[in-house]
Parts: sequence; structure tokens; C-alpha cells
Amino acid sequence: MSSTIGHIFQLTTFGESHGKAIGGIIEGCPSGIELDLNAIQLELDRRKPGQSDITTPRKESDQVEFLSGLIDGTTTGAPIGFTIPNTNTKSEDYDHLKDTFRPSHADYSYDKKYGVRDHRGGGRASARETANWVVAGAIAKQILGKKNVKITAYVDQVGSIKLEGDIDFEVIDKNEVRTANLEVATRMNDLIDTIRDEGNTIGGSIACNIIGVPAGLGEPVFAKLSASLGKAMLSINAVKGFEIGSGFSAVAMKGSEHNDLFNEDFSTKSNHSGGIQGGISNGMPINFRVAFKPVSTVMQHQPSVDSDGAEITLEGKGRHDPCVVPRAVAIVEALSAIVLLDAYLTAKTNTI
Amino acid sequence: MSSTIGHIFQLTTFGESHGKAIGGIIEGCPSGIELDLNAIQLELDRRKPGQSDITTPRKESDQVEFLSGLIDGTTTGAPIGFTIPNTNTKSEDYDHLKDTFRPSHADYSYDKKYGVRDHRGGGRASARETANWVVAGAIAKQILGKKNVKITAYVDQVGSIKLEGDIDFEVIDKNEVRTANLEVATRMNDLIDTIRDEGNTIGGSIACNIIGVPAGLGEPVFAKLSASLGKAMLSINAVKGFEIGSGFSAVAMKGSEHNDLFNEDFSTKSNHSGGIQGGISNGMPINFRVAFKPVSTVMQHQPSVDSDGAEITLEGKGRHDPCVVPRAVAIVEALSAIVLLDAYLTAKTNTI
Amino acid sequence: MSSTIGHIFQLTTFGESHGKAIGGIIEGCPSGIELDLNAIQLELDRRKPGQSDITTPRKESDQVEFLSGLIDGTTTGAPIGFTIPNTNTKSEDYDHLKDTFRPSHADYSYDKKYGVRDHRGGGRASARETANWVVAGAIAKQILGKKNVKITAYVDQVGSIKLEGDIDFEVIDKNEVRTANLEVATRMNDLIDTIRDEGNTIGGSIACNIIGVPAGLGEPVFAKLSASLGKAMLSINAVKGFEIGSGFSAVAMKGSEHNDLFNEDFSTKSNHSGGIQGGISNGMPINFRVAFKPVSTVMQHQPSVDSDGAEITLEGKGRHDPCVVPRAVAIVEALSAIVLLDAYLTAKTNTI
Amino acid sequence: MSSTIGHIFQLTTFGESHGKAIGGIIEGCPSGIELDLNAIQLELDRRKPGQSDITTPRKESDQVEFLSGLIDGTTTGAPIGFTIPNTNTKSEDYDHLKDTFRPSHADYSYDKKYGVRDHRGGGRASARETANWVVAGAIAKQILGKKNVKITAYVDQVGSIKLEGDIDFEVIDKNEVRTANLEVATRMNDLIDTIRDEGNTIGGSIACNIIGVPAGLGEPVFAKLSASLGKAMLSINAVKGFEIGSGFSAVAMKGSEHNDLFNEDFSTKSNHSGGIQGGISNGMPINFRVAFKPVSTVMQHQPSVDSDGAEITLEGKGRHDPCVVPRAVAIVEALSAIVLLDAYLTAKTNTI
Repeated sequence: MSSTIGHIFQLTTFGESHGKAIGGIIEGCPSGIELDLNAIQLELDRRKPGQSDITTPRKESDQVEFLSGLIDGTTTGAPIGFTIPNTNTKSEDYDHLKDTFRPSHADYSYDKKYGVRDHRGGGRASARETANWVVAGAIAKQILGKKNVKITAYVDQVGSIKLEGDIDFEVIDKNEVRTANLEVATRMNDLIDTIRDEGNTIGGSIACNIIGVPAGLGEPVFAKLSASLGKAMLSINAVKGFEIGSGFSAVAMKGSEHNDLFNEDFSTKSNHSGGIQGGISNGMPINFRVAFKPVSTVMQHQPSVDSDGAEITLEGKGRHDPCVVPRAVAIVEALSAIVLLDAYLTAKTNTI
Repeated sequence: MSSTIGHIFQLTTFGESHGKAIGGIIEGCPSGIELDLNAIQLELDRRKPGQSDITTPRKESDQVEFLSGLIDGTTTGAPIGFTIPNTNTKSEDYDHLKDTFRPSHADYSYDKKYGVRDHRGGGRASARETANWVVAGAIAKQILGKKNVKITAYVDQVGSIKLEGDIDFEVIDKNEVRTANLEVATRMNDLIDTIRDEGNTIGGSIACNIIGVPAGLGEPVFAKLSASLGKAMLSINAVKGFEIGSGFSAVAMKGSEHNDLFNEDFSTKSNHSGGIQGGISNGMPINFRVAFKPVSTVMQHQPSVDSDGAEITLEGKGRHDPCVVPRAVAIVEALSAIVLLDAYLTAKTNTI
Repeated sequence: MSSTIGHIFQLTTFGESHGKAIGGIIEGCPSGIELDLNAIQLELDRRKPGQSDITTPRKESDQVEFLSGLIDGTTTGAPIGFTIPNTNTKSEDYDHLKDTFRPSHADYSYDKKYGVRDHRGGGRASARETANWVVAGAIAKQILGKKNVKITAYVDQVGSIKLEGDIDFEVIDKNEVRTANLEVATRMNDLIDTIRDEGNTIGGSIACNIIGVPAGLGEPVFAKLSASLGKAMLSINAVKGFEIGSGFSAVAMKGSEHNDLFNEDFSTKSNHSGGIQGGISNGMPINFRVAFKPVSTVMQHQPSVDSDGAEITLEGKGRHDPCVVPRAVAIVEALSAIVLLDAYLTAKTNTI
Repeated sequence: MSSTIGHIFQLTTFGESHGKAIGGIIEGCPSGIELDLNAIQLELDRRKPGQSDITTPRKESDQVEFLSGLIDGTTTGAPIGFTIPNTNTKSEDYDHLKDTFRPSHADYSYDKKYGVRDHRGGGRASARETANWVVAGAIAKQILGKKNVKITAYVDQVGSIKLEGDIDFEVIDKNEVRTANLEVATRMNDLIDTIRDEGNTIGGSIACNIIGVPAGLGEPVFAKLSASLGKAMLSINAVKGFEIGSGFSAVAMKGSEHNDLFNEDFSTKSNHSGGIQGGISNGMPINFRVAFKPVSTVMQHQPSVDSDGAEITLEGKGRHDPCVVPRAVAIVEALSAIVLLDAYLTAKTNTI
């Protein structure tokens, strides 16, 4: 189960960054959907490394190959198998890590769990896995698009720089940081440049806005739409927090100010609920925020231990992102789409 | 699936606050465990309404009755069925709500989803459901206790009052707010008193600390321990946010300061990871925080709409909590225990 | 998972024959269905012990109590919790079995599995559990009935007496054996009488015929409708075999005679497929057969062993059925309904 | 879920016979297992077409490629992704079937379900899918082998020719029919030759014997080992029946003769239970039988209908098996291994 997301629309994945390929199987994709395969590749390109100066210089083409489930580009209802070859793997970059535990990576915890570990590129813990999610998410997005659901994620904080001023979704893919204000984008970009030159990394956060969701998606109790979105986001490698609607700011609020009063068309005057009430969508925009820690691999010397617990010094090697959020925007959208399409299909079973 | 939590150790629940009883079925409980049934009841008492001045005056005895799965108090491996009768239901308190949508409740979203709605006490969306979780959690806690896992939750913020100063776990159950500092407790208590007298409600947050967790629990990718804890917490009725370890503060941090450097015994000097790396426990204390919005039912007049969209005025009626966090401490611990025991049992299958 | 059947329409159960009650939770029941609660009780009566001379003289009223999920008899989409109290338990009848393994019961295998065992009435292995299935099945049947699906099971063999001659579904509930021909019924009845008087038991088989199933139900590969029906039937306590359509007789057939040729309306001239092709219903009647072994509890002395492996002699005690199939007709129908409704709801997700 | 088998040890698959490749993902494979990759290929060779005169002349090399989850041939606990390229696809062989429904194939039922259909080679309904199962089964077999579990399947009937006389497991892979007696093998072989020359096909059955299974595997109620084995077998494309232990012969037996009396070492004097009691293994050999219908594709003219219901005549084209059981022996063993390993791992969670 640990490589599967979804109940009806399900993605199951495999792959390490240094095997032959990563890939996945999409089960439960509705039949008869004509897919725009090029649009899927464009989403992968938004996530791929080496796309700009502020991402890792590691280049991966991330070319998806579909192996089943489509006939002439149309879904047949059969599982969609796909692979993304690993083309630019420098396994020797990782030889020095074979018996080493890197701070704040999954090296130690995997080793304790499994007794054996693929030390190359983080093995199964590599964020390369998220390319699989983007493939499935891009398909889900297209299907949701036919129902007028629109998902927009963007960077809303890098380090201490918050997204303030006008929010313009049109500019998100026109700046390398993928924030929603070009002036703020410049400042965030400069910060990431500086951080990278220090051989350091920096945290950030992403906001997501989803419109067009019909009321009634999500299931009560343990399959709340908010909880499913939260779980999906907390599955992203560097994520440390998730909040929906008013989020942590609700802690200091009174009920009389937090309550979202109704308009006569059942829309609400405020949206502290973030579009979800009792775990079920109410037709208002769904809003949430995701916190990313700084990438653990820094290009600086760090003290650490080997697998015997002996002190060593780790050199900063390899090709890594100084800040993960610009590339993670595509991941947040992809997971949102997977969760929403699954909820959409599940809701079809609420009545006969 | 929407009423089930867990993969191996599974709780499935049923119940509305105004039916005959709520209850659940615990599947996958290991056999041969001698349970302290009284300790289960004590956990229910920590959650039950009417336990103090700062909770709802509604009194429910919340007496659990076990129907199966035990022989002389020892688990047999068979599913443990249980019920908690609803004894103090004043359904007539809800008659005025039959055709009314209350702001920030699940009335409207349920109605759109199902076309029919149990309007009494929130129906399936009632927080009474959480009593079921406490039963299963109390059992999980006892089993984890045999493995020296200890789970401690406490209120760390009410409104704008944060828990500051010394943290003393010993006092948590000695103050009605269930925070970890008696001086702060008094201030929080006063705030809740004031809020209640205003006919209003206030938000709060709960921190949770789990020690004794062996390294290696949690599964990669979509069953990360952090994501499973997050999903569980986001299933609690009023929760708007979840953060683990450094949480949202990681956004503004650099990698060089966020990284948790190792000691020679594989413990770490800091614990920004919150005890989980790559989704898998690393043996350090697990720390997370949960944000609760203010309860939506306020004892004030509120404008709202009926099911035709016509404007109405809602009176504040019924018996409700001015602040939900004191009672939610038991819920946070219960869900943590369910998630951890499930992860513990799952990890047994990682090797032959 | 071991007490759950179904993916969308799910039944989860609990209970031993000598606890306070058995019961279950039905998840995923569509909302807005007006249930005939009396019809559910009538199905339970078809399964209950003590209903005729050829069943066990043990009397159980098997009165179901619904605890949630309904408002004025209409489903709300919330889980339907129910219990069936155990009223006529003579636990002392089982005292002599505490340290004894009965031949062909689950005593030994449970003991090896769990290390602890509820020896009273077979514990979790008791066929009393099937009353839970009849409740959920009766609900599923009513929902399917609204879609014109009709499920009819009947005894088609007892010992060596096969159902031959005219098949008349109208007489099934008019004879105590529940076969479909009154003359054969008399002979089967006589055989069961004789067997009972010998203190022995006898096997039997049940056929099931389902009409009105639309084409397109069931999912490929590992969720074939035929395989799901088979798994459900093989979950019944005494079942040793399952065959669909031509079944075991297909082994000796040639393709040219086995193939079901089409009529112009896509019905088929023969129905060796049993209404399912490639795991998916084709609109023809679904036909299958289920083989039941003779009940293991005989009213004769039998050599056995105690839990130390020492030889003992078991006396035949208790109140048991000489032949299980007359009461199992209701169980076969119930499980069929659960599987079909689940497939019906799942198929709704095949397209957007 | 429809392409997934297993709860802990899980196989999820994809692929049609005329896409680029079929393949799968094995989740929950225990870590630290050194695999013999050659032995996996040998199992595939036992299933592959073109291996002998009595199978289809279609040649497929069925070369599996592992993409993840292994390091130096040892399992890491990460999902094992694999593909098997489709190399010998003659899609043009199927052009005439585009708007045609073949009798007793899944053409019509898929078309009604999905509205769109991959008509080439049966699409997702192709038995080529079973090659995926053999890969996962071969891995499961190796792991079970370390626990001394041995699975042996063999043909026990072709048409009316039953396996009689001495049973010798040593000869199974030394005759092309894969039965357990060389004299019977010759007769079965001759029958298949004759049938093939007639352009016809013939049914058959396979018996399976599993030794070394510890007592205590399988879960009660809805995850009985017998039911899980049955469901797996009923997932094989041409299977029409499944029986365990005494199977359908139990119908005519009395309890006093059917009961398996204990020896002092808890083995039983007879084994009508087939090694499973109450759904849980009792340590005796597990025995079951699987009935296969004759292959639907015959090399004769057959009347059928096109997608408009108009009468057409189908020519027998393509390259198909006259009898499926010789190749299905590897499939029965593979699925048995998957089910048993899953049960073995699940049973590890029955106690702490």
C-alpha cells in the first residue's frame, strides 16, 4: 500500500533515482477520455531539474513513455502503465555515501528499517519519485478540466520573503520561482541565488487554489477531502506542514469572526473553511498552504557519522536544488488533481 | 473506506450523536493482550463533555460496552466490537435546524452530497464520533505501552495565549485546560471563561510528544508516518492545520541550520525532523502540532440561510464547548496511538 | 481487512456466538434509499436456527437492531451500524471443549494462530457470523431490486439426491429444504431426517440464479465478478467448492460446443459462461453452484485429541444442523447481493 | 484495485498483449532476500507460448526486465518494478475483429462496460497478463522456499482423460502436458494433438499440492486462505471452478466419514479439509483443483455478430492453444505463492 495513492483513481509507483527507470500504474482511470499527451510532458518539464538557474544543474529529460491503457491517445479503462527512464545517473557521485548517514536524509531510518539500502541518490527516498506523480496528476488535471475544475499552485514564501502585493496567477509560469507577483519573484530569485552561492539551501512554501469544485466531494470521517489533501502534501519529500483555509491563524480567532456566513446562493461571505466543511467540498474555492523545509544536501562540509557511529566529515557533493519550491509547484498541483479526481469518482457512488 | 482508519490495526466506526448508539469494530488487534478495561474508560472520561466548567455542560456518561473479541479481558485476535450508547440526546434542540444551514458546519455540504441529512446534532459530522476513536486509541496505547512507547499531548495555545515557560507533563491532567504549565493554564482558563460568557468560542492548538518509538516505523512514499499522523489529525472535526518537527518555521530556515546532526549513538543534536525522516521514524521523539479552529456553534444570533437560500436568523441554542482543545487532547493521543500501532505491526512484515 | 467484504459497498463485522452480540457496519450504502426493515427481518428468519424439524433445535430470535445511518427508515449515506444480540447461549455446553480440539473444526488452526481461543461455540469461526451477512445482503437486495436485479438461490443436491425434474422457483420457500421441486424436496427431507436420527450430518449444494444484471459489472483481472462471487461463497463456513456456468463440466468439453453463440440482440444461445465473460457481466443470467461439506459436529462418539495431543473421546453434544444447506440459501443470496451491489457502484466510476 | 492482488505482498499489473510491454509493481516484498533471477526466467519459460507442439505456435521470448527494488540482486524493501516487452505482436491479425464480438470472449462485455475497446489480442482480457503473475509468483516462491514451503501444480485431467495410476511429481516437467504420470501424459498429448488437428480446443483441470505450510496462515471470515486461493484461481482467464480438499465430492458425504480425525502429533488421518480449517492452515498439505474451460478461439468457422448485432461468420485466425492447462501449471503455482506469502506476512501481525 505504501506506493499507492487513491481509492478509485489509483496511482502505484516504483523506482529509485539510479535504477533503469522509474514509473507507475494508473488504475481506475475512466474510459473514453482523449488525452493530450503533450500537455503531460509539459507538466513534467515544469518539475524537471535543470530548468533554470535556481534549480539543480542536473539535467534529466524526464521523458514519459506510456506502455498500456491507451488506444490512439484515448483511455480504455485499462491500467495506464508508464516509465520514465533514468538517463543522467552518476552513481559514482554516491560511492562515498555507501556507509555514511547524511544528516536529515532518510539514510539512517531506511537502514534501520530494511537492513539494506540503495545508497545511490537516496534510493526510494529520492524526490525523483515525484515525476511519477506529475504524470498521473497531469492526466487527472485534464479529466477534471473537462468538469471545469482548475488547480493553481504558486510559491508564496521563500525564506523570510512572503508573497505580498497583487496576486496574479498569469505570471506564475513566467518567473523561475513560480510566485504570483513579478516584483516579489525578483527578490525571491535573488535570495535563492545568494543561498546557492553560499552552498546552502533555503525553505519555502506553496499555496494552492482550486476553483470549480462542485459541492459534495470528499467523504466523512476518515476520508475527508481536507485530510486526503493533507496526507498527499505531507507525502512530498521536504514537507513539514499543511494548513487549509484559515489554518494555524484559526487558533487565535473567535467563532464569531471565523464563521463563514452564507450568501443567498449558498456561497459564503468569507472562506475560512477553505472550501471544505466537515471534510466535504462546499463549492467555494479550496485553499491550502504547504511548508517545505530547506533541502538537506548542502554544498558545505558537515560533521556526520558512518554506519558504525564513527565521526566523519561529509563533503557537499552532487547536484542539488538550493530551494525546492519552484519545482514543487507542479507536484502540489499533480497531487491535488489525483486527490480531487479520486473524490469526484467516489462521490458518483453516493447515490444509485 | 471513509469510516476506516489503519491498514493492519484498523478501526471502522458508525454513529450519529442522536441515534441509539455510536460504536466501532477494531480489526487486526494482536491476540493475547490483557487489556485494562478501566484505563479505556478513563481515556473516555478525559474526552467526555461536562467534565469541567470550560467544556460543554452537556453530560454524557460515554460508557463503552465491549461485545466481542475478548475472553476474560484478553484479546483473542477476533475483531473487537463495541458500542457507546447515546444517553443524553435532546433531539428537539435541533428541530429548528431541519431546514437550516448553520455557518461553517457541514450542513450544506452534506446536504449537497447526500440529498438527505440527519440534522440532529450534526449527524455523522458530530464530534461525538471521536469517542469511538478514543476507545480504539486507548487499546492501542496499552499495547504500545508494552513496547515502551509513551504518547503525551497537551494544549499549547488558546487564542493568543501560548504555552511559554517551563513545560511539565505531570501537570497536564491536573488543570482543566490540559496545558503543561499551571500558570499558563490559569490564563488560558480565564480566557475561555470570558469567551464562554460572551457566547463566543475560541481556537487553540495541541502539541504532541511521543517517545520510545523504535527507528524504522512508517513506510515510504504514500504511507509515511508523518503523512499518516497528519491525515489522522486532519480528520478531527475542527482541525485546520498540522505541522511536524520544525513545521512552518522551516520555511524561513537554511539547510545548514535545519539539518539534524548525528551523535555517535545515532541520536541527533537537534530534532527539526520531529523524529521522522523520509517518512520513517529515526528513534528521536516524534513532535507535531495541530491547529483547531473555534467551534462554529456560538451562543449569539447569526444571520444564515434556509435550504431555499432565504435569509434567516439563527439563535445560539444547545450545549457546546467554548473551546475544543481541552477535550481534544485525548483525541490527539488516541489517533496517534492508532497510527503508531498500525505502523508498528506493518513494520513486522518488512522482513521474513 | 479480514472482517470486511466489498470495496465501495462494504460490510465489516464482529462477533462470536457466545458474546453479548454480533453485528456489523455497512459503509458506502447509497443515500436516499427507503428501506423495508421488515423484509430484512424476514431474510434473517430464513437463516435462523430452529425454523424447522430439519434444522438445529437451537432457537435464536436473531432480532436485528439498527443503530445509525437511517432517518425514518431512509439511508443517509452514513454507515449503518447494527447488532444482533446473542440470546440463547449455553456456554456451559462448551466447557468440555476448552482444552479439546474437535475434528474438522477450526479449533486447532485458531489455537496455533492466536495462542488463545474462545472455545465457546466456535468463537469467531461460528457460522452465527453469517447472520450479519444476511442483514447487509438484505439491504443490498432491496437496492438491487430497484434496478430489477433478482437473486434466487436454492438447494440442488443433498447427499446423493440431486434436484431433477421441473425447476420451480415458486416452491423454494414452500418446502423446508428450500429446493425447487416439491417431489425432490420430500426425498431430501426424508434423507435429512434419517441422517439426523443417526446422529450424523450430510453435505449438500446450492445453486444460484441471478437475472436482470446489466452488462458491464465486474472489473478485469483481480476483481472479476466471477472471482468476487467465488471468494464470497468460499467464505461461508462449510463451503468446499464453487463453479460458475459450465463449471467443472467444462473440463471435458470442446471449444466448439462450449462457446456461447450470439443472438442478434447480443443475448447468447447457450450460457456456459454463466453470465460473466472476462470477469464482466454480459447481461445473461448469472449461474453458479456452491458445494457444502457435512457439518463437522456429529452426535456420535468420536476419537480426538486434547491440546496436549493426548487421545480423548468426544461426545456429540450441543444443538446442531444435520444438513446446513436449507439455512444457507439465505446466506448465498445475501453474499451475492453484497458482491453485485458493490460491482454496480464500482462500475459507476468507469466513466466520468 | 482491479489490477492488484494481495494485502501486504501486493502485485499491481498493467498491459495489453499488443502494447509496447506488460509489467507490474511488487509492493511489500520483504527486504534482504537474495533472488535467483534466472529461476524467475525459468518460470516464465514454463508459461511461455511456443514451448512445445501442443501449445500455440506463437513465439514470445517473455524476457523480464527489473527496473527497481533490487541492489545486486537483493531486495531492498522498495517496490520491484518490472516490464516484459511485447515482441511478437501481429496487430493486423486482429483487424477483422475491430467491430466484431467473438463468442465466449470478453469483447462484448468490455464494450458494454467501457464504450471503447482495445480489440487487438483481447486487450486487457488477454491471458498474456498472466506472465506478470508468474514473475511475482516466482519471487514469492523463492521466499517461501526459504521457509520450506513447496508448491507443486500439475494437470490432472484433459477432456475426459483423468490422471489415474501412480502420481509422480518428478515427471511433471518431463512431459509436455505437465501431468504426473508419463503413461497418462502420452494419452493426454495424443488427445490434444487430435483436437488441434480438428481446429478445436479442449478443457482440462489442474491440481495443486502445497507442503510445508505452517499452521496458522490465513485470516478468519473474509480473508480465509481457502477463499483467497479460490479468488486467485478464479482470476485466471479460462477458469470455471475451484474446489479445495474434498471439494464437490463432500456434497454426498456424511460428517462421520468426512471428519479428519487427529493423530497425536495434531496431523490428521485423512485430509478432506485440504489443509485448511476455518480458513486457516492446519499444517497438513493444502490441496485444491481448478477447472479450465476449452479456449474460446477455435480454428473453425463460427457464426457471430458484429457490433450492430448483424450476423457474420468468424474465421478461425491467429495462433492459439488447443488446450490451456499445460502452460497454466506455472500460473497456478505463481498465484498460490503470491497468496501464501501474503498470508505468511500478514500472520506476522497477529501477535506483538
